[in-house]
Amino acid sequence: MIDLYTAATPNGWKASVALEEMELDYTVHGVNLMKGEQKTAEFLAMNPNGRIPVIVDKSEGDHVVFESGAIMLYLAEKTGKFLPTDAKGRSQVMQWVMFQMGGVGPMMGQANVFHRYLEEKIPIAIDRYQNEVRRLFTVLDGRLEDNEYLAGDYSIADMANWCWVRTYEWSGVSIEGLDNLTRWKNSIEARPAARRGVEVPNKIDKEALIKGAKNVVTR
Amino acid sequence: MIDLYTAATPNGWKASVALEEMELDYTVHGVNLMKGEQKTAEFLAMNPNGRIPVIVDKSEGDHVVFESGAIMLYLAEKTGKFLPTDAKGRSQVMQWVMFQMGGVGPMMGQANVFHRYLEEKIPIAIDRYQNEVRRLFTVLDGRLEDNEYLAGDYSIADMANWCWVRTYEWSGVSIEGLDNLTRWKNSIEARPAARRGVEVPNKIDKEALIKGAKNVVTR
Repeated sequence: MIDLYTAATPNGWKASVALEEMELDYTVHGVNLMKGEQKTAEFLAMNPNGRIPVIVDKSEGDHVVFESGAIMLYLAEKTGKFLPTDAKGRSQVMQWVMFQMGGVGPMMGQANVFHRYLEEKIPIAIDRYQNEVRRLFTVLDGRLEDNEYLAGDYSIADMANWCWVRTYEWSGVSIEGLDNLTRWKNSIEARPAARRGVEVPNKIDKEALIKGAKNVVTR
Repeated sequence: MIDLYTAATPNGWKASVALEEMELDYTVHGVNLMKGEQKTAEFLAMNPNGRIPVIVDKSEGDHVVFESGAIMLYLAEKTGKFLPTDAKGRSQVMQWVMFQMGGVGPMMGQANVFHRYLEEKIPIAIDRYQNEVRRLFTVLDGRLEDNEYLAGDYSIADMANWCWVRTYEWSGVSIEGLDNLTRWKNSIEARPAARRGVEVPNKIDKEALIKGAKNVVTR
């Protein structure tokens, strides 16, 4: 059994989508970001960075994993699912996981900060991040032109990128003309497990998400 | 034999420090960012994202790896060095690698953009990123209070974070009062292989680095 500490954000979804796709048993503990529950002593003892998601693997001596990318990798290795075992296949998946971790995630996060959260509107910053996100989307679109998924079969690389890409409207970035990206996005949206994953935790309502997101704007 | 395509940036150093620490044979190909060599058709065929570093493992059928975090993981698995083989130990190292990939790297990158590169000075953006970098440094410092290294023995997690942390002055962020972080930074700087790694490639002079960095400011 796994304990999942999470909230309804793209990084949070990465964990719950992986858990759903891998058919693992888990218990959801909603973390109210608006109330700062991710900064309590209890939470910081699990993740000193004070960010969701975090998992605790009860079946492995309460092994704690933070950072959404590390959670996906840990779960994929635990289950042997959605990550090839051969060196090259693994490497290709991890390249696209890292592309999300270092690129799509942080850049969409910054676009959200300047486009949505800051009261003062700074056009140079808004443009900068929205343009960079569109550029990254174009890279994904190019990759998906000759590939059904980002790296071989459907993998944690697709889940990771999809959890962010699906929020493109919130970042104020268009996916118009990116037909391969759109086809890929729709195909993942059609997966029941992925859909269930983004509905976790369902107790946190949309208002809390939007206000709460102000606390996690840097990621 | 491995071909390394790189430039003198923190992400570039991550690859060369790993190669040096792992005592792998490799050939350096300097990529002149100022001239846009990372956007040529030849380079984009290796990494469609147009970013350094990239490696090509000639001994594995010219297997290409982009994204500095994915390169470190690939090399660690190839050599069996600087990454534990047990699930928990591996997971702890990868959590701190992801912390660098999604946090320290992108946030220092943004601090550099607003503090260094943009002509228009936007205090709210400069403060935002410098404060976030200092906060991330404080998380590292706390972790290093009771730990010599970030996750057990010296690992790719230390190399990855160190390559960024060492440039704190360039980001305009102080490490004053962060004694554990400073001790850790100094101990890595004292490693001959790490020092050699950050001198690669030595053909790219400092002026080119600074001007060239304008092309890679988003990471």
